[in-house]
Amino acid sequence: NRNVEFETSPQAIRLYYFYNHWTMRAAIYFFIFVDLSLALFEKPALFPLPLLATSLVEVLCLTAFFGRLVHFAKVTPQMVFWKDTKNICVMVTIVLTLIDLIIYGSLEAVNIHSVRWSRVLRPIFVVNFPESRQIRRAFRSIRNTLPDILYVFLLFIFSVLIFSLMALKLFGNRSLKTVDGSPYFTNILEIAFELYILVTTANSPDVMMPAYDFNWWYSLYFITYIIINTYIFMSVFLAVIYNNYRKHLKNEIRKLAYLKRYKMMEAFNFLNVEVGTEFVVTEARWKQLVKVVAPDITSSHMELLLRICDEERKGHVGMVTWLLAFPFPALSQSGVAGVLLAILRLLFLADKMNFLRLADLLNIQVVTINVKTHPLETWMPRVYQSPASLLVRKVVRHRREVGKSSGYAMSDLKKGKASRLSFLLHASWSCSRTPDEMCFLGFFVWAYDVIILINAIFIALDEKNPFISYAEWVFLSLYIIEILLKLYTYEPRTYFGMKQYWNWFDTLIIIAALLASVATATIQSARKYNSQQVLDIVLILRILRLLRVIVSIQRSGSFQGAWGDAATPGLLLQKASSCQPKAPELFLDPRFRVIVTTLINIGPTMLVFGGLILVVYYAFAIIGMEAFHGKIQYLDPNSTAPGALVCGNPALNGSVFARDRYCKNNFNDIASSFIVLIELTVVNQWHDILSEGLALPAQRRGMLGVASRRRGGGVHLGGTDFVPMADGFARVTHQAAKLYFIGFHVVVVILIVNIFIAFILEAFFVAYSLEKSEVETAIEKKIQELG
Amino acid sequence: NRNVEFETSPQAIRLYYFYNHWTMRAAIYFFIFVDLSLALFEKPALFPLPLLATSLVEVLCLTAFFGRLVHFAKVTPQMVFWKDTKNICVMVTIVLTLIDLIIYGSLEAVNIHSVRWSRVLRPIFVVNFPESRQIRRAFRSIRNTLPDILYVFLLFIFSVLIFSLMALKLFGNRSLKTVDGSPYFTNILEIAFELYILVTTANSPDVMMPAYDFNWWYSLYFITYIIINTYIFMSVFLAVIYNNYRKHLKNEIRKLAYLKRYKMMEAFNFLNVEVGTEFVVTEARWKQLVKVVAPDITSSHMELLLRICDEERKGHVGMVTWLLAFPFPALSQSGVAGVLLAILRLLFLADKMNFLRLADLLNIQVVTINVKTHPLETWMPRVYQSPASLLVRKVVRHRREVGKSSGYAMSDLKKGKASRLSFLLHASWSCSRTPDEMCFLGFFVWAYDVIILINAIFIALDEKNPFISYAEWVFLSLYIIEILLKLYTYEPRTYFGMKQYWNWFDTLIIIAALLASVATATIQSARKYNSQQVLDIVLILRILRLLRVIVSIQRSGSFQGAWGDAATPGLLLQKASSCQPKAPELFLDPRFRVIVTTLINIGPTMLVFGGLILVVYYAFAIIGMEAFHGKIQYLDPNSTAPGALVCGNPALNGSVFARDRYCKNNFNDIASSFIVLIELTVVNQWHDILSEGLALPAQRRGMLGVASRRRGGGVHLGGTDFVPMADGFARVTHQAAKLYFIGFHVVVVILIVNIFIAFILEAFFVAYSLEKSEVETAIEKKIQELG
Repeated sequence: NRNVEFETSPQAIRLYYFYNHWTMRAAIYFFIFVDLSLALFEKPALFPLPLLATSLVEVLCLTAFFGRLVHFAKVTPQMVFWKDTKNICVMVTIVLTLIDLIIYGSLEAVNIHSVRWSRVLRPIFVVNFPESRQIRRAFRSIRNTLPDILYVFLLFIFSVLIFSLMALKLFGNRSLKTVDGSPYFTNILEIAFELYILVTTANSPDVMMPAYDFNWWYSLYFITYIIINTYIFMSVFLAVIYNNYRKHLKNEIRKLAYLKRYKMMEAFNFLNVEVGTEFVVTEARWKQLVKVVAPDITSSHMELLLRICDEERKGHVGMVTWLLAFPFPALSQSGVAGVLLAILRLLFLADKMNFLRLADLLNIQVVTINVKTHPLETWMPRVYQSPASLLVRKVVRHRREVGKSSGYAMSDLKKGKASRLSFLLHASWSCSRTPDEMCFLGFFVWAYDVIILINAIFIALDEKNPFISYAEWVFLSLYIIEILLKLYTYEPRTYFGMKQYWNWFDTLIIIAALLASVATATIQSARKYNSQQVLDIVLILRILRLLRVIVSIQRSGSFQGAWGDAATPGLLLQKASSCQPKAPELFLDPRFRVIVTTLINIGPTMLVFGGLILVVYYAFAIIGMEAFHGKIQYLDPNSTAPGALVCGNPALNGSVFARDRYCKNNFNDIASSFIVLIELTVVNQWHDILSEGLALPAQRRGMLGVASRRRGGGVHLGGTDFVPMADGFARVTHQAAKLYFIGFHVVVVILIVNIFIAFILEAFFVAYSLEKSEVETAIEKKIQELG
Repeated sequence: NRNVEFETSPQAIRLYYFYNHWTMRAAIYFFIFVDLSLALFEKPALFPLPLLATSLVEVLCLTAFFGRLVHFAKVTPQMVFWKDTKNICVMVTIVLTLIDLIIYGSLEAVNIHSVRWSRVLRPIFVVNFPESRQIRRAFRSIRNTLPDILYVFLLFIFSVLIFSLMALKLFGNRSLKTVDGSPYFTNILEIAFELYILVTTANSPDVMMPAYDFNWWYSLYFITYIIINTYIFMSVFLAVIYNNYRKHLKNEIRKLAYLKRYKMMEAFNFLNVEVGTEFVVTEARWKQLVKVVAPDITSSHMELLLRICDEERKGHVGMVTWLLAFPFPALSQSGVAGVLLAILRLLFLADKMNFLRLADLLNIQVVTINVKTHPLETWMPRVYQSPASLLVRKVVRHRREVGKSSGYAMSDLKKGKASRLSFLLHASWSCSRTPDEMCFLGFFVWAYDVIILINAIFIALDEKNPFISYAEWVFLSLYIIEILLKLYTYEPRTYFGMKQYWNWFDTLIIIAALLASVATATIQSARKYNSQQVLDIVLILRILRLLRVIVSIQRSGSFQGAWGDAATPGLLLQKASSCQPKAPELFLDPRFRVIVTTLINIGPTMLVFGGLILVVYYAFAIIGMEAFHGKIQYLDPNSTAPGALVCGNPALNGSVFARDRYCKNNFNDIASSFIVLIELTVVNQWHDILSEGLALPAQRRGMLGVASRRRGGGVHLGGTDFVPMADGFARVTHQAAKLYFIGFHVVVVILIVNIFIAFILEAFFVAYSLEKSEVETAIEKKIQELG
């Protein structure tokens, strides 16, 4: 955690290094993971373990957390440590968890079952350790959005209540009946709840039908309601959240940039010497420092940075260029593409002059490629350079790599040096090739695109046909040949470079498919056992191979794609120049590429949302498990066990929940709970899951009571004493369950899903505004000047 | 239509004036309305009329459209007329409609029933007459968005197909069964369709349950699918549409502003005279022109504009100020607040220097109020000015109108003049009052807020209680007293001014409630007839009165609210200065006001969306009626008519559609069709409506076939010849229906609803960015300088 103040004594610095060591970080992540996964083993468990075991593991985790905190306290000044709510939070949580463990354990020892309430607090560890900065930022953003959301929510609730009142007055005295015969819109709270559900569209036509059947003018009431509450208010929620998201993101980024600049200035003041009229850092000192800060930087990268810093080659670095191009491992390390994109956009909106600061933040992520000699060339140069081999390599070589040949030309020129600054070659990229030649170069890729499409058709056909299952082997061999040919053409270490994700993807999928296919064939030929799991994996792998079509499209039209490709000298922000190879018009449209690239780029930031969702889901799952576990059982509907068709709960007899076989949607263990919560996030049918499945066991009892009262009323018998009690009991449980589900809806669907949408909107706007921005041009120009 | 070129001969100009006369416009709107509403009377009709009658009316409408077109042709130069696709479109539609009418009529005469296909074309008249510029702009925006949408859609379809393939391979051979016993995921097209529905979340847990029951790991497949397709792709659609909406709106506005400026320059060149070194328009000529262009402008407004134009009082108007402040009735007339908001935002983003152009576009909507003397003051000055009367007026006067008293002071000062430029008083608004005094002034409003809240509670109670129904009369009289007091305090003509929407709302609601209550009481006391309709209206009016709480909140905290209030000198863009009266903290938060104001302001633009939706719905409704009418009948479920429980169609026996009593969701007339389309827009259950209700009559036959085949297969009997035919027939009808519904989903839900959301997002961003912008300050400053 870079932005933490720390003491400057040598011992403290040693401790600080140790604190930031990757093993310590990994350990803490491991313990957080273990602590969270305890829910799998505690009652209600997916894999039951005795209480003693889970308790011991939990105490171990807590000790680890405490140790980490003590370590951190030694690193930071005391004042700072105690002012930080994060640390206080973690400590309080540890203490509360211990207290809960002791109480629960001792009660369990005397066979009294209580509630492990402290389990809800576990996600606090995820959020509050300094390692999860991104998630914390997301939570901060949510917290900041709350006041605005609250205003909209109040208006929204007011609107729902006004409409509820209207509904009560319009329909309450009509003695209408819903489909299942219960009275329609007679209780204001029930109406408000039904109308709230209508906002989520989950009960869309059903809630309207009785009134609509009565008189079609009443549908106007519901249409007005839907327009105002479902469409306008839900959009306003999105607008408010998006607006705040953008505002707070901007502030965070500014603060971060300011902090970094401040520290860099401090460092400069510490290092500088006076030369002439200005204060500078000498080149030797600069290089030394870079080596310390970024030990894995290549010498070529460092040279580039130095040349940017020291344009006039005076042998020292001035303050401005110091701030500009010091390889400070700030944001590049965290690797959150979304934040980078956001910075780009925000800085552009804020100030065109901030362009330099942008370059600074981006650390000008230069991808230097070592144009290495192919091992085969070293081992048997004559064969590798023979005309046949050259032809093969020419065919295999990707058509987009027009510039590559000039790159190779230079590498031939300066033979003997294994590494050079290949970014300099960019300036020499040219459109010297004729269209025919480019077409020829593209043949290999096109052939494989066609193969993939044919493969897709074969996959869709019935694989029980032996001919088709043989065809699978043919396709597999074709893919293996492709990879081998590519390895023959490109240098293997370059092909499997750090950022060649797609190459890794290709190779892993093919190898896995090969292994799995062989395994399946072996098993099938043994005729003893047909493993469905292995077969499933083979099938998925086969289909995932089809994704390569997208890769091919993405690569074909753009130089940007070259970034992810082997052996091509690449710069992150390179421009698709006028030299564009032939491809169908559609895929050459830069807008198509923008969309695909953005879709691929938002991948990493999804992890932050994953963390956010995990924290929220975990808390809700624990609460749900405590409240609802065991209420519903999944029993094989084909079994003859009693209650198999009513999810093991007679109260569900005849309910929509049982009818639609939702029995597996229960809170009996953490995995099921997560799946139910995901279903609730998707919203549809959530009121069924809610009222029918979880709250309704109690409500049903109430309804049975009502039914018996009605029956009782019909024949004027007693039973009226029983009814209010059952009804009241039903109501209590019912209302509480409703609160849980409405709370979940507000937090997840209204808040987090909208933040997610805001994030995607922002990512796309960044991509669109970048498309024609001057960054690329400017950086390219700079590079060209240097070259 | 201002931006149309027209000939300049005197006759042409007279024709042009006649063309633009409001009666002609009203007539054309009337005929469009009649033409569209013909669907109510044509088969399948809500109110059947003979074919001859509807045909005659249609021919009349077509004649009117043709006449309008001919008139337009005489106004415009021929070249321009024939180049305009709008005119060609209308003409072709008229011809096609006539052909269709003749064919249909003659076939009908020999008792052959055919399809009135030209009815689908009717919305073209709505779109293509020059009067509906806004709707056309919306359509143009959609057309421009299509390429981008197409790319995303292709990727999306690719993703759905990949997932379908996976599903086929994973689940196809498991012989799993859905809840209703049909095979699960065995046909790739069915799977693709189910997965497409999953994107809309309509079949959310159901489609997953069989696989989930089989093995809970399979839920991961569905979760991945939902994350990728439901969340990411749907957000990408929104992002792409929003981005394009903004871009194209900007272009349209720019073009409009350019055109206007160009024309104004032409006018200036025509009118100017040389004075000294510069070309100017003389004051007399300027005034003359303003009188012609805007005959209803007040002299004070004109004087203000002139003073803005001619700051140095030279007696003539220069070019720059000519462009700045000529009261050109451009956008203010169309009254589309959303467009104004959008202009504001776009201009701010584009260029700070465009501020002047903004004022230009806005026409500096100065609201000049004539501070008239109250009639009572004229009639009986002594009573009206008595201490008691003054006290009443002081209490009633709205606490926010702090500046008003100074306004009155000035009006006393300059007694005798009925009208003056009250905007000058703005400068004198001050916070001179003490908090106590303000509190006292606010008492009246607060008292009525409390009364409204108590009224809300009374409404929620059971109105059968006589005490409560008497209370209603008390509340009604209280409201009437309020209005009378206000009329006593404020000048009546000012109180019911043109823009005092809320006053009109208040008064109309109260008068209507009074009338309706009296009517109900009369009817009830007559004990003969209890009109439910009148009661409903009374109830709704009662509840609508509660909306005044929002008005009160909205007014209380803001000077902006003063715009809509009587007797307060108001300027559209006035700033809530530091002089803020006491109110609960919550409602003083400017963000709350921004939200409420924006919500109220987006109202008018909703009409454009109404038009857009109407056009699309109409076309789909006509197609739906032709394809599906009569398939489903609504019969009272309590009746003993055969098939009452299966919507009059035995094929629906046991279907979800019949079980949930969706029988009224049919395409039997245009009103029902519209309601079904709205339900489809809301998305939930649409697959039920689709497959069960409309396509399934055919599909069911297929399924019955399948069932019989199975039965047949069980006992090895015949019937296999029948099955494929029924199955094939089912499939054909089924696929076609699917296309209709998917088409509707793509057009309405993916395209139009997203544009709607984009519009609301944009409106809110404008409101937020305006909140702290310098426009208000700048205009205020200008006004103050002038004062």
